[in-house]
Amino acid sequence: MAAHPVSPLAPKSYPELPAISGVRFATAEAGIKYKNRTDVLLMAFDEGTTVAGVLTRSKCSSAAVELCRENLVGGVARGLVVNSGNSNAFTGMKGRESVRYITRVAAEALGCAPSEVFIAQTGVIGELIDASKFDGVLDETATRMNTLPWIEPAKAIMTTDTFPKLSGAVLEIDGVEVRINGIAKGSGMIAPDMATMLSFVVTDMPIAAPVLQALLARHNQTSFNSITVDSDTSTSDTLLAFATGQARVEPIQSLEDPRAEIFGQALSDVLFELAIHVVRDGEGATKQVSVHVEGATSDESAFRIAKAIADSPLVKTAIAGEDANWGRVVMAVGKAGEPADRDRLSIRFGDLTVARNGERAAGYDEAATSAYMKGEELELTVSLGLGEGKATVYTCDLTHGYITINGDYRS
Amino acid sequence: MAAHPVSPLAPKSYPELPAISGVRFATAEAGIKYKNRTDVLLMAFDEGTTVAGVLTRSKCSSAAVELCRENLVGGVARGLVVNSGNSNAFTGMKGRESVRYITRVAAEALGCAPSEVFIAQTGVIGELIDASKFDGVLDETATRMNTLPWIEPAKAIMTTDTFPKLSGAVLEIDGVEVRINGIAKGSGMIAPDMATMLSFVVTDMPIAAPVLQALLARHNQTSFNSITVDSDTSTSDTLLAFATGQARVEPIQSLEDPRAEIFGQALSDVLFELAIHVVRDGEGATKQVSVHVEGATSDESAFRIAKAIADSPLVKTAIAGEDANWGRVVMAVGKAGEPADRDRLSIRFGDLTVARNGERAAGYDEAATSAYMKGEELELTVSLGLGEGKATVYTCDLTHGYITINGDYRS
Repeated sequence: MAAHPVSPLAPKSYPELPAISGVRFATAEAGIKYKNRTDVLLMAFDEGTTVAGVLTRSKCSSAAVELCRENLVGGVARGLVVNSGNSNAFTGMKGRESVRYITRVAAEALGCAPSEVFIAQTGVIGELIDASKFDGVLDETATRMNTLPWIEPAKAIMTTDTFPKLSGAVLEIDGVEVRINGIAKGSGMIAPDMATMLSFVVTDMPIAAPVLQALLARHNQTSFNSITVDSDTSTSDTLLAFATGQARVEPIQSLEDPRAEIFGQALSDVLFELAIHVVRDGEGATKQVSVHVEGATSDESAFRIAKAIADSPLVKTAIAGEDANWGRVVMAVGKAGEPADRDRLSIRFGDLTVARNGERAAGYDEAATSAYMKGEELELTVSLGLGEGKATVYTCDLTHGYITINGDYRS
Repeated sequence: MAAHPVSPLAPKSYPELPAISGVRFATAEAGIKYKNRTDVLLMAFDEGTTVAGVLTRSKCSSAAVELCRENLVGGVARGLVVNSGNSNAFTGMKGRESVRYITRVAAEALGCAPSEVFIAQTGVIGELIDASKFDGVLDETATRMNTLPWIEPAKAIMTTDTFPKLSGAVLEIDGVEVRINGIAKGSGMIAPDMATMLSFVVTDMPIAAPVLQALLARHNQTSFNSITVDSDTSTSDTLLAFATGQARVEPIQSLEDPRAEIFGQALSDVLFELAIHVVRDGEGATKQVSVHVEGATSDESAFRIAKAIADSPLVKTAIAGEDANWGRVVMAVGKAGEPADRDRLSIRFGDLTVARNGERAAGYDEAATSAYMKGEELELTVSLGLGEGKATVYTCDLTHGYITINGDYRS
């Protein structure tokens, strides 16, 4: 994949995430697809680490996803191995054997059981990975493990990403400082209704696997499941959360524990920030767009309408052209197939109402709207006037950059 | 809308459709959006003309669509008025009044009842049309009605289309020649699951309105409802069929009449050719792609998978790049949410099998596949190996041209 210019929406700086007790990591060059490029991440977790995960709902999920699904049942983790360059997806029985082989090599390097090792792979689909490339590499990597800096694993998992994605939260629980660090990768093949891309979150909070799983699934809904770049969903989407449990507080054993709510909110913040980073690194993106739908008959209905708007190529190209083309928004509302009454429908860009009750708004200010559309972060709100349902989906615009990245093989 | 280069997939010539007894037409310049541009089509049907229609399922359908829905109940037609430049969609109560006004003006010009006049409008959404622009214009147009040439109405209804779309069939029923002529417009905001764009078909076959309606709905499924350019669906999609009944044969009164099948097949051919013209004029299209799905658990399931593939921006950009990227096809199969077993899945481009039983096919010929992808008309076949269900969806590639047409307002 050729190098592409860094997204204009990239952050100006990256957070220096703190070490988290109970996790160490190192990266390596295994030459999976390219030479002289970091393409492997190995993480080691101390004994007692619980794990939760949300995986792609694709009917053609990758071998790595299937293995994670299997190992999540145990609820404990000692290792994570991630590679870029080859997703090993759609590689049949041989693909399944290869991920088993790689996790066995990792388990030996880390001194744990293969069922305690998780794996994620990203890159080309349909080519069997050469599992022997991990021979020796993981052993050697395991001798160099460290707790810092977190930008290193964030960089190691990048593919078409133009910037590394990190987010962290520090919160106090029972007077003790608890940490949550997260990294993510993804910029194309990104759509809601799935776990979307790769993301790994580590905390030192002691928390039972089923509680972590419940919180992760809940907050995934409003973060990774609420973004779309191109409506396409990967076969390898993986979100894993690891809790080393080394913070010296009583473990959270149940969702009824009031601390679950507090911890969940911090987890949610980290997931949300990572998800927004993914949108802002959307292939070819020049604008970040929040699509709010309110007044729908239910939250689910609002979500489907927001997704129809955020997925619409015509809406996204209009935004690229800085055109407040609310006619295309109406079109997308109409095609969602959800209850909508044209004559109650209102549309705002930012605070500027462009349509009210099914007609161009009286006092619509074209100059102000045009000025607003030049911004880098846009808010688009559709009020249906039918009920209390609401939802937000986050997306980016659709530009020549997307076509260049995904279609210009001949150039 | 700026003029765009004619699609490279435009036909080399246009059919010279014959006159159809019982229908006359003329076009006019009403200055609806631009000066000096034909933007109105008026058609007049002789007494005894039956009518059927398939209209957008958009929840925000236009005023013209709503009026057609109302008038279709009567089953008879004397007039059709079509304008480009303004779709009059999302214009509330005033929009409804304006289409009533326009059909009244048309009815006076043609000497019939307003309930016998059908209307279709295409162009910008959300701006109330100035109905007074039709005053005098339709009266005058009605004095110039003719039976030929059919390319004239085909041109009058174009918007971002780069070529006019016509198709005709002549068949023999009971030893008598029966004619079917069709025209269509559309190149963006095109997706299945709706009637899609504007299309008008006229025949001299005497056929009862309910029978015509049943045949139109059935054959719309495998033509206009099986194409997609950009997955976006218009608020104004309209397909109307008019039967003047002037061919000297006994009328078809029931679907049980064996001639219904014969007539339906010819109608189907006309609808299909028009639908393919729309795909070939897809905004920015450089390739026409037929996506076949076979071996699905049902035809409906096959259709949803084919549509997921045909709608996928990643598949469409890969095709633009002449890359037989079957990994992206697998991704699209996976995201459709329909039953699919990776290990039974096979994928062919043309006759070239690239993947078989969940893996790259033994004997995959990269050079031959690359050569095939340079073609202008491509066939992509996915075999699921699960059942007997099959479907085909027709689409085009996704290129810089699409972005330029829909997003480059600033240029």
